Amino acid sequence: MNKINSLESKVRSYCRAYPVMFTKAKNSHLIDKDGKKYLDFLCGAGSLNYGHNNPDLKNKVIDYLNQDGIIHSLDLATESKEEFLDSFSKNILSPRNLDYKIQFTGPTGTNAVEAALKIARKVTGRTKIISFTNGFHGVTLGSVAATGNKHHRGGAGISLNDVMFMPFDGYMGKKLDTIDYLRRLLEDNSSGIDLPAAVILETVQGEGGINIASSKWLQSLQELCREFGILIIVDDIQVGCGRTGTFFSFEGMGITPDLIVLSKSLSGFGLPFSLLLLKPELDKWKPGEHNGTFRGNNLAFVTAKTAIEQYWTTDELEKQIILNSKILQTRLEEISAEFPSSDIQVRGKGMIYGIDCILGDFASEIRQKCFENGLILETCGADDQVVKLLPPLNISEDDLMMGLDILETSIKQVISESDFDKLLEAEVIQK
Amino acid sequence: MNKINSLESKVRSYCRAYPVMFTKAKNSHLIDKDGKKYLDFLCGAGSLNYGHNNPDLKNKVIDYLNQDGIIHSLDLATESKEEFLDSFSKNILSPRNLDYKIQFTGPTGTNAVEAALKIARKVTGRTKIISFTNGFHGVTLGSVAATGNKHHRGGAGISLNDVMFMPFDGYMGKKLDTIDYLRRLLEDNSSGIDLPAAVILETVQGEGGINIASSKWLQSLQELCREFGILIIVDDIQVGCGRTGTFFSFEGMGITPDLIVLSKSLSGFGLPFSLLLLKPELDKWKPGEHNGTFRGNNLAFVTAKTAIEQYWTTDELEKQIILNSKILQTRLEEISAEFPSSDIQVRGKGMIYGIDCILGDFASEIRQKCFENGLILETCGADDQVVKLLPPLNISEDDLMMGLDILETSIKQVISESDFDKLLEAEVIQK
Amino acid sequence: MNKINSLESKVRSYCRAYPVMFTKAKNSHLIDKDGKKYLDFLCGAGSLNYGHNNPDLKNKVIDYLNQDGIIHSLDLATESKEEFLDSFSKNILSPRNLDYKIQFTGPTGTNAVEAALKIARKVTGRTKIISFTNGFHGVTLGSVAATGNKHHRGGAGISLNDVMFMPFDGYMGKKLDTIDYLRRLLEDNSSGIDLPAAVILETVQGEGGINIASSKWLQSLQELCREFGILIIVDDIQVGCGRTGTFFSFEGMGITPDLIVLSKSLSGFGLPFSLLLLKPELDKWKPGEHNGTFRGNNLAFVTAKTAIEQYWTTDELEKQIILNSKILQTRLEEISAEFPSSDIQVRGKGMIYGIDCILGDFASEIRQKCFENGLILETCGADDQVVKLLPPLNISEDDLMMGLDILETSIKQVISESDFDKLLEAEVIQK
Amino acid sequence: MNKINSLESKVRSYCRAYPVMFTKAKNSHLIDKDGKKYLDFLCGAGSLNYGHNNPDLKNKVIDYLNQDGIIHSLDLATESKEEFLDSFSKNILSPRNLDYKIQFTGPTGTNAVEAALKIARKVTGRTKIISFTNGFHGVTLGSVAATGNKHHRGGAGISLNDVMFMPFDGYMGKKLDTIDYLRRLLEDNSSGIDLPAAVILETVQGEGGINIASSKWLQSLQELCREFGILIIVDDIQVGCGRTGTFFSFEGMGITPDLIVLSKSLSGFGLPFSLLLLKPELDKWKPGEHNGTFRGNNLAFVTAKTAIEQYWTTDELEKQIILNSKILQTRLEEISAEFPSSDIQVRGKGMIYGIDCILGDFASEIRQKCFENGLILETCGADDQVVKLLPPLNISEDDLMMGLDILETSIKQVISESDFDKLLEAEVIQK
Repeated sequence: MNKINSLESKVRSYCRAYPVMFTKAKNSHLIDKDGKKYLDFLCGAGSLNYGHNNPDLKNKVIDYLNQDGIIHSLDLATESKEEFLDSFSKNILSPRNLDYKIQFTGPTGTNAVEAALKIARKVTGRTKIISFTNGFHGVTLGSVAATGNKHHRGGAGISLNDVMFMPFDGYMGKKLDTIDYLRRLLEDNSSGIDLPAAVILETVQGEGGINIASSKWLQSLQELCREFGILIIVDDIQVGCGRTGTFFSFEGMGITPDLIVLSKSLSGFGLPFSLLLLKPELDKWKPGEHNGTFRGNNLAFVTAKTAIEQYWTTDELEKQIILNSKILQTRLEEISAEFPSSDIQVRGKGMIYGIDCILGDFASEIRQKCFENGLILETCGADDQVVKLLPPLNISEDDLMMGLDILETSIKQVISESDFDKLLEAEVIQK
Repeated sequence: MNKINSLESKVRSYCRAYPVMFTKAKNSHLIDKDGKKYLDFLCGAGSLNYGHNNPDLKNKVIDYLNQDGIIHSLDLATESKEEFLDSFSKNILSPRNLDYKIQFTGPTGTNAVEAALKIARKVTGRTKIISFTNGFHGVTLGSVAATGNKHHRGGAGISLNDVMFMPFDGYMGKKLDTIDYLRRLLEDNSSGIDLPAAVILETVQGEGGINIASSKWLQSLQELCREFGILIIVDDIQVGCGRTGTFFSFEGMGITPDLIVLSKSLSGFGLPFSLLLLKPELDKWKPGEHNGTFRGNNLAFVTAKTAIEQYWTTDELEKQIILNSKILQTRLEEISAEFPSSDIQVRGKGMIYGIDCILGDFASEIRQKCFENGLILETCGADDQVVKLLPPLNISEDDLMMGLDILETSIKQVISESDFDKLLEAEVIQK
Repeated sequence: MNKINSLESKVRSYCRAYPVMFTKAKNSHLIDKDGKKYLDFLCGAGSLNYGHNNPDLKNKVIDYLNQDGIIHSLDLATESKEEFLDSFSKNILSPRNLDYKIQFTGPTGTNAVEAALKIARKVTGRTKIISFTNGFHGVTLGSVAATGNKHHRGGAGISLNDVMFMPFDGYMGKKLDTIDYLRRLLEDNSSGIDLPAAVILETVQGEGGINIASSKWLQSLQELCREFGILIIVDDIQVGCGRTGTFFSFEGMGITPDLIVLSKSLSGFGLPFSLLLLKPELDKWKPGEHNGTFRGNNLAFVTAKTAIEQYWTTDELEKQIILNSKILQTRLEEISAEFPSSDIQVRGKGMIYGIDCILGDFASEIRQKCFENGLILETCGADDQVVKLLPPLNISEDDLMMGLDILETSIKQVISESDFDKLLEAEVIQK
Repeated sequence: MNKINSLESKVRSYCRAYPVMFTKAKNSHLIDKDGKKYLDFLCGAGSLNYGHNNPDLKNKVIDYLNQDGIIHSLDLATESKEEFLDSFSKNILSPRNLDYKIQFTGPTGTNAVEAALKIARKVTGRTKIISFTNGFHGVTLGSVAATGNKHHRGGAGISLNDVMFMPFDGYMGKKLDTIDYLRRLLEDNSSGIDLPAAVILETVQGEGGINIASSKWLQSLQELCREFGILIIVDDIQVGCGRTGTFFSFEGMGITPDLIVLSKSLSGFGLPFSLLLLKPELDKWKPGEHNGTFRGNNLAFVTAKTAIEQYWTTDELEKQIILNSKILQTRLEEISAEFPSSDIQVRGKGMIYGIDCILGDFASEIRQKCFENGLILETCGADDQVVKLLPPLNISEDDLMMGLDILETSIKQVISESDFDKLLEAEVIQK
């Protein structure tokens, strides 16, 4: 890895935690130069919900290339785009009774978030956005202002403004219904909280530590927003496309967002692709007002359409997620019971789970030990204190169990080799 | 196109100007559903410098897919990334005596611009950026603040700040050396112009109307910047990768930027890909401080490396550009001589050329007529008054001549069918 | 009043509520053109703590004028300034063991607030300020960003930024210790709450509805601020100079602010005058960096010094306030017991008291009826729902009792003539 | 002065340049503790146009005090306010055919500037303001953003935004008509210069170095502003109230501002007082939307009315200014001819004049020498390189001549005692 270390910017990060050279990947596995296989529970931070090099998607790509299909098209009308639009509309939106216009933004999640923030401000004529504690929405200037993380905020080099942070569901424990608090602020003519254009939120905060908003909280939020003419933006970049068990993370939660951001696993194949869904009445863009060179990534249209048709026209995948989710939850709770502190929490839903290890160093050693043992996963949360599991949605039961076995073994090794038990105890007492 | 019109957001733009459904593309041509071929002098707004579906690049992609090469890797170390880094360093940077760290940003030009603005502010501890009249740098919040165009600025929904606009080379004609003006402001303790972190500029303004900075101007700018500790960011998104005749647009101009942004034709195949080059001493990022899901687009690594090796290890392409550039210039000047006004200007360099038609409607009708005649090109400039030509760099002489023939015919048709001659005269007199 | 109505801007306000022409004033009374006397419990919104035309102060002014004392001096050294500084230092700061540098700002409260915010940001290198719900700090751009009131914020015409609002003491009732909440946000690396330069607060929120911070809350706030290097700015514009019973409102509360803003009653005679007190280590101003034409208002120096010597060199005034305060509290509680709802609250301290009438219209009619009956007082709070009493500190017992009698009578009249009892009941039930 | 030095903040400035203790003042003179008299050509930076302790004004103040006239009244209707309004309307506005609403802001110039910027933004719905190089408008957050001086901007501690600086009349010498430049930017849809709410300017820049806008420039500016719906704010704080020879500085220049800010000499007696004049159609304030405790400074109403009636109901003062102005100009040009460089410029109008000494140190020594010789004046300009003369408008010819004699002598002394002749030569050659 000498060349990477000498040529690439210091900003590089994952390659520091997993310092091997990867060459190939298949389904749930990454394979390094020496042929060593790693189970991948990181999955491109949620970009590979259907596994690596999913064969059906791959074959479609190769066919498309062989036919000299259009690769780059700005936002010209192409057959592959039309087919994607048609399929997304027919198979995703219609069955869920959802009515949205589809906007192709630049193919990064943050670009679609920027588009959402812009149109929300433009349509409402208001400047402020409400974001929530521990929310993560990207690092371009508009998005990073709505991102809670100090590490990322610090990179901006200027004061981040026009966003107000409010406590997420459960932020103050049971002491405070955080929607009550927000309602109080909005109803108070003298709270200093300007009426915002929109709220932006993840229903499950992925980078923020696997914090899960309840249906009740989401519904109260929606009620409050409707009352004050505030738009709701759901950032489903990480937890959309099936990650929580349904295509959209908010399905069955009793809310209908005004704007939805999709990216990561949208192409199904790991290709750059992002969408903004807008309620038709919000589609007040002028032609080209939000543009971008790669908003017509046709290879991604091809794979996205194929993924939709393969995984979202029957309920097979959803059933598999239910089964896998049960396995995940059961095993993780068993594992957490072995921890030296009863404050260790398992949190999750569908196929996104986390073990809150309280101490960042503890979680970091677990991640490191897992890597040594052949399992790749990452940590998240304000102090990187949560071990995060994002296996492919369609992982085989064997692979899933093997990953969980490695995790269990690794945790035991870390505990036995260190004195985290004492540190945890001290930390818990202090709190 | 009914489905696109009914399902896609109103923000769609190019598909309005060219309302046909495209299905295939090869070298200099786009082909629609009915098999009609169009010469493509738009080229993905500069993203297809080596033509559509360049066969060598395509074959590499198919091989890579067939081997289950890694597609998505966040910023893990992958073989394809290392090979790209090595090739870029060896074949692009070293021969030009350039020493930069390479940062993989989110795969959009605007994302790399945001990274450049962030690191410039962070490193200098200053908040302001100087951008230039008619500059275009993207539409995410940080970039659009540095973009001059009212249409795009209006999409932000909030006041755009921390950027000060200065007149580009020649903005006030010969009356004013615009660097003299900038120097006066910076030397004046009471000018209200805060010392900026950086200037950002395109050496040839693509979207802004094919405005070309002279070597002298660039060198004066560099001298001034060095004097005041201001960093120079060259946005080579549209005019880099050979468009002006050399890999970087500033080669031979006597300047060495502190930061360089590359995108569009970087992958060579139209795939989303962007880079920020930083002088090593500016690489003060913390790990992951600027991140993004698709910063490891391995298919783009594969094609980018192949493109470099195919086109930038010999001087063949550069020679071809010189020949094609001469053809372009000669023919365009001949064509412009037929215009009803002698104020019509031909501006360009390498393989980026524009005819400034003074009137937006005039340029628009020319574009429309060209399209009817089988040539795709776009307009640019503050009033879309410039007909812009971006043929593939490696276009065959026959295709180039055919495109220019269509352009000439179309212009004649527009002139004969309209009264732009009178309107132009009126406009010119008024000025 | 025709001329005022036709010539003065629509921004005029108090003259709308009290539409008579005043000509003279003495002690607790304002006198109109027709000789009608009004008891003044408004007192220039806290600017006349020692009554109108206090004779000792008046005589000093006349003497000074007769001697051709300097009136306007920018910030030249003048004898009257030196004498004020000396007296303030000896009689106010030293006996309280306080060590501050004294900055003469422009002679408005908001100007001193702006100076405080500027130096706090400059010294800490941080950009954000924390202000509290229902806080009021002025309407110039820096101050109004820290002011909660929607009515005033709306006047700015631009987005107000770089200030974050936090819940004041008791904002969520007993459910939430608001300092616990603030601590959680500051300790959380991912809360989105950037480390601020300072907090700014009134210990008793005057405009915000007579909300009183407890000692415990203030001490917890100070502890938290010290921990995170956050400066504490106490805005004592309205409740300083004795209003709460001590010269500074925070005396005896267990805190020592880093910066203190004084104005309103500082001159003692109603003359424009403001101060910023800075801990010596924060006095990092360059000469003239914050300036202003009227920062040397020598008439105010003369009266301020006289007021200090007359009222703050013995404990007589403080004793009088204690007695008057008891009267106020006792009578107001009796009065409030007659209200048709038991949710009516009396809040106050020293000589600043409010009756929270829940409904703005109710409070407004009480104010109006009082005016008809010869008592001037104003309403405050987010919905102007609080009837506010600010009698002169040195008011005679007779005048105080007479004012309270008028208030009682007026309230009874309003209740008997209206159906606020039903409206109140409805409002309380709804909550 | 020990007490001032030890107790007052480091921000103090004038008392550093003139380190003596002043006690009395009369007409054109300041008198120190030891009885030494100084001719005052600083005049409170333009706040004492009618001299110190003007006897007629003083007597009115004493009478008013003796009658227990109202001192502080928030914005209640008072007789003194009504009389001022009436007199201002009848004697100032009507004879000049001006129709404005009168807004009493907080009694500082910067407060009135803030009000102007706020209402301009609110009424137009635009956020940006255009200010000019070397403009000075105050140091509260809104005003300092429109102030060019780096020294003052640096005090804000945050990035100053929503103001764009444009070159003042003559900023680039004869090379560039700066209104042509501004027109080009506003007409260009891609200049990055957002359509502003207003321009703010001084017709003669006082702090900025005595830079004088020509009638032609002002008229071109007005024409341009009318064309683009941009409001014109004239900041007449320093050069209004007769300083340039007419009550408003723009009289006879062919423009009618939309908003006018007055302060400094408005009270005529050096008392804090400020006004904003608004065209009636711009008076869109809600009651109390811009407020301030001391917006009803009745002593200032009394003196301001008296000053108007004494000085602005006949043309006597205007005639005196014409005579004095001629003396000033003639003598200053004679004096400047003695300078060692022919680049020394005399600039001025009415009773505001400056000698541009090119070098800040040179001007500073002249100021210092004048002080030693009994004449107080200050320096201004980006490098404090301009010696500035602001004698009382009604100064006696003797006093004026004496002041100019002292200036001449002092300059000669400085030249003979130093080597500024060489430094000046070097500086001029370098340019």
